[in-house]
Amino acid sequence: MPAAPSDPLDCRTSRPRSWWGWGYADAHPDDAACAALGALLPGTLSRPLPVPRVADLAVPPPGAAPPAALAHLVTAAPEARAAHAMGKAYRDVMRALRGRPGRIPDLVARPTCEREVADLLDWAGGHGVAVIPFGGGSSVVGGVEYRGDAHRAVLSLDLTSMDRVLEVDTAGRAARIQAGALGPVLEEQLRPHGLTLRHFPQSFEFSTLGGWLATRAGGHYATVRTHIDDFVQALNVVTPTGVSTSWRLPASGAGPSPDRLFLGSEGALGVITEAWMRLQERPRFKASASVAFADFRQALDAVRAVAQSDLAPANCRLLDSGEALFSGASQDGSAVLVLGFESATAPVGDRLASAVELARSHGARRGTPTAEHGARAEGGDEADGAVSAWRSAFLRMPYLRDGLARMGAVVETFETAATWETVPALIDAVRTEVGAAATKATGHPATVNCRLTHVYPDGAAPYFTVAVAGRPGDEVQVWAEIKAAANEVLHRHRATITHHHAVGRDHRPGYDLQRPEPFARALRAAKNALDPRNILNPGVLID
Amino acid sequence: MPAAPSDPLDCRTSRPRSWWGWGYADAHPDDAACAALGALLPGTLSRPLPVPRVADLAVPPPGAAPPAALAHLVTAAPEARAAHAMGKAYRDVMRALRGRPGRIPDLVARPTCEREVADLLDWAGGHGVAVIPFGGGSSVVGGVEYRGDAHRAVLSLDLTSMDRVLEVDTAGRAARIQAGALGPVLEEQLRPHGLTLRHFPQSFEFSTLGGWLATRAGGHYATVRTHIDDFVQALNVVTPTGVSTSWRLPASGAGPSPDRLFLGSEGALGVITEAWMRLQERPRFKASASVAFADFRQALDAVRAVAQSDLAPANCRLLDSGEALFSGASQDGSAVLVLGFESATAPVGDRLASAVELARSHGARRGTPTAEHGARAEGGDEADGAVSAWRSAFLRMPYLRDGLARMGAVVETFETAATWETVPALIDAVRTEVGAAATKATGHPATVNCRLTHVYPDGAAPYFTVAVAGRPGDEVQVWAEIKAAANEVLHRHRATITHHHAVGRDHRPGYDLQRPEPFARALRAAKNALDPRNILNPGVLID
Repeated sequence: MPAAPSDPLDCRTSRPRSWWGWGYADAHPDDAACAALGALLPGTLSRPLPVPRVADLAVPPPGAAPPAALAHLVTAAPEARAAHAMGKAYRDVMRALRGRPGRIPDLVARPTCEREVADLLDWAGGHGVAVIPFGGGSSVVGGVEYRGDAHRAVLSLDLTSMDRVLEVDTAGRAARIQAGALGPVLEEQLRPHGLTLRHFPQSFEFSTLGGWLATRAGGHYATVRTHIDDFVQALNVVTPTGVSTSWRLPASGAGPSPDRLFLGSEGALGVITEAWMRLQERPRFKASASVAFADFRQALDAVRAVAQSDLAPANCRLLDSGEALFSGASQDGSAVLVLGFESATAPVGDRLASAVELARSHGARRGTPTAEHGARAEGGDEADGAVSAWRSAFLRMPYLRDGLARMGAVVETFETAATWETVPALIDAVRTEVGAAATKATGHPATVNCRLTHVYPDGAAPYFTVAVAGRPGDEVQVWAEIKAAANEVLHRHRATITHHHAVGRDHRPGYDLQRPEPFARALRAAKNALDPRNILNPGVLID
Repeated sequence: MPAAPSDPLDCRTSRPRSWWGWGYADAHPDDAACAALGALLPGTLSRPLPVPRVADLAVPPPGAAPPAALAHLVTAAPEARAAHAMGKAYRDVMRALRGRPGRIPDLVARPTCEREVADLLDWAGGHGVAVIPFGGGSSVVGGVEYRGDAHRAVLSLDLTSMDRVLEVDTAGRAARIQAGALGPVLEEQLRPHGLTLRHFPQSFEFSTLGGWLATRAGGHYATVRTHIDDFVQALNVVTPTGVSTSWRLPASGAGPSPDRLFLGSEGALGVITEAWMRLQERPRFKASASVAFADFRQALDAVRAVAQSDLAPANCRLLDSGEALFSGASQDGSAVLVLGFESATAPVGDRLASAVELARSHGARRGTPTAEHGARAEGGDEADGAVSAWRSAFLRMPYLRDGLARMGAVVETFETAATWETVPALIDAVRTEVGAAATKATGHPATVNCRLTHVYPDGAAPYFTVAVAGRPGDEVQVWAEIKAAANEVLHRHRATITHHHAVGRDHRPGYDLQRPEPFARALRAAKNALDPRNILNPGVLID
């Protein structure tokens, strides 16, 4: 086996990533910043928990060794294995901080082509080795760790060495892209063609195309084409029983969609190795604005009106007063609606003006559309202060969560979707009941904030952040109690257990109740047909 | 058993439907009109084949009898059975005309609720009876007939007694609708709510919601949300092993979509009994126009530009010169692009003007946007002559096909979708090769026309009509030779075997080659799990 790189998640860049927390190691809040964060929540620790070190972990010897022909793809170095042991859920971060991470995989493999993926699956199947497909490792639902002991060993299958844009169809605006490409890596390769995937989840820098596809990730667009699903033209999936290659088609009505079976399959049915993706021209016109509401119910009505119009904003995020305050979008207790429009072909100022007018007619107190402006650079061209404050905070939030975790706080973010008639009562119930559960578990006051991340003519996707000081040493249990309360409220309102974070292992209880039982049988049968030895990501979706 | 109605497809209306051909019996061309049609194609018969009569068929006694508890739902009357023996493909019509229809089902059942559907499946499963779910019976791919002899008897399960809109969610613009509702029946119930499904396939009057869902039907919108799939909020499906009920959700990322497994399952996995469907407000603004092109390649480029813009026309149909001539949209050999815009919230004249301008910049020779006009009535409010000519011809076409069939002509319509880089060569190859196959099979000159029915940023859906005088008495064999040539051309270009007509039995050879083999295994496993006795629509999709 080759020597392990010092940071195994980061073999292509010079900026090391954190093995235990979000994103770049050098972007984490320092001890003083953690303490300042902790001061926002009554009852947190007086000083931050230390940054955990791999050297302090008990990393057992690997339970299996790859054959010689595959050995050059595989490492058993502790740093690599620790960095692939878990995703980036609060639960994962806290387990690392408390020195009790999930089961550390025995081996980490970095295949460079589809053939090597198939060879690794063949070997694993023949040796009782579980295989956990791993992209950027940003799962917040326990999607990339092994739980249980039914397998002889665990192999983390890191796809990030397969990160090339292999073909571009300029006329048809599509590209064949390897699944292991992180967001910036694929966008960089598309830029010379004047094209972009425009899939910008919060995890954009630290997640891969394959991960987005396997988890049905939600992306840039707040309306219409909200999920990565809508941009898939064809998929290549390596299953233990053969490679599934669908045709490049703009649309088809030939039986149930093959791609839709693999979208959201979370690595349980096969390893997505590449996809033909539908692209956009880079936007030439952008305009954004924010409007404020004193009353959250009125804001919900305004958002529904915008979602039911033909306006199709690219961004349409409603922040409740807590979210607006935390992100700097508003200081006065208002809810804030962030609106953004973009187009490659035509000015969008009129659409923005219409949306703002619609919001005003539903009670928005202020709201000034910015002058239309050419799109100069991604993310840095927002003329509206609240919009830009929100965007910066959005990308910073996971780091702040880790800072709060170091102060012993419990921070859970969860998201869902429900019909418009359900949304108001659902949000109220989450605020009340999940807040109460957090306080009951800790004795401390809890904060529950809400935003709508995606909106539809028939409903919306609320996203919640719950924060409370934990019980020292017992934070993961507190998290579990909060999570159980959240799942219960979602289920009672028939709101989906996840709109775009995926099911993983953490959402299994809710998912199992939500999924129609005949579909569960069909999915189990499909799994048995494609992965008869049950080596692929055991425990996600189905048993 | 109760006395059979005189026309079993038509128990709720007073206007009898044809048992052997398209639509209403009284709308068929008379003998003189048939002869006039035949004169358009050299080599057709000198007088029309007689309209076939059920009384002339050899209808065998039924091979099974329902239990007493279900007998009131079931008929064995010859008229009912003959009308449910086949769909409305050319092959079906010609088999009826030649007195050799497909296997006539032993029984026809008309359940009135989900419980009765389940009871009928239970009985059928216990008695080796195949069950063919039947909506409007408009399948043009052999989707509603039985082939083979592996079952003791065949039950046609007619859902059209389940045709009610059960609930309407006005705020969230959705309705729970029973699957057996024909297009006009459901729209009539939605109208008082100011809402509409706006799914208007050519078969609108003679097909049901359940049929649309089971076959992934293409509908009204030529862009963006082209298939019925996009309007599904939740499904109820009765399988032989239990009822699958998905939650009403605007969107979800919880595993592979349960609904997407049943969409396009063509009755092989279960019987769709009802659905929550996303609705639209009735459009208040409409505008349409047509533009003409001397050069079809230029027209393709223009359509691509429109499809890749943000304009999202509701209608965007490109007719080649033959289609334009036949429909009366153009007399001078031009290709014609029909453009239509509509909105419930805002005027659409600017969007139409932009689309026409885009077409002109790609070589359109003329093109006058009509003045914007309020939407008064569906379908009757087109101000542009070519648009209105095209629409009338569109709805009349299947009747004309049957008239041509009575003159011994062979008429095959088939449709597909492919990427933009494939479309031009595909259309050329169909014209040349399928035309040649038709002539080779008959010795007569053949007509091959093409239109684009739906367009996408990454490709388009071409629809072909092939017409040729047949070999008298051997028309079905001629059809089979033409179909084989068409399937071969589609497969060679990796164009889907169907964009919205479904697979049925006629498209199985192409579908089996197109479908990824691992997906075929997964689908077969799902079928075994849901329909272990293989009673549901045997022969469609999978064996």
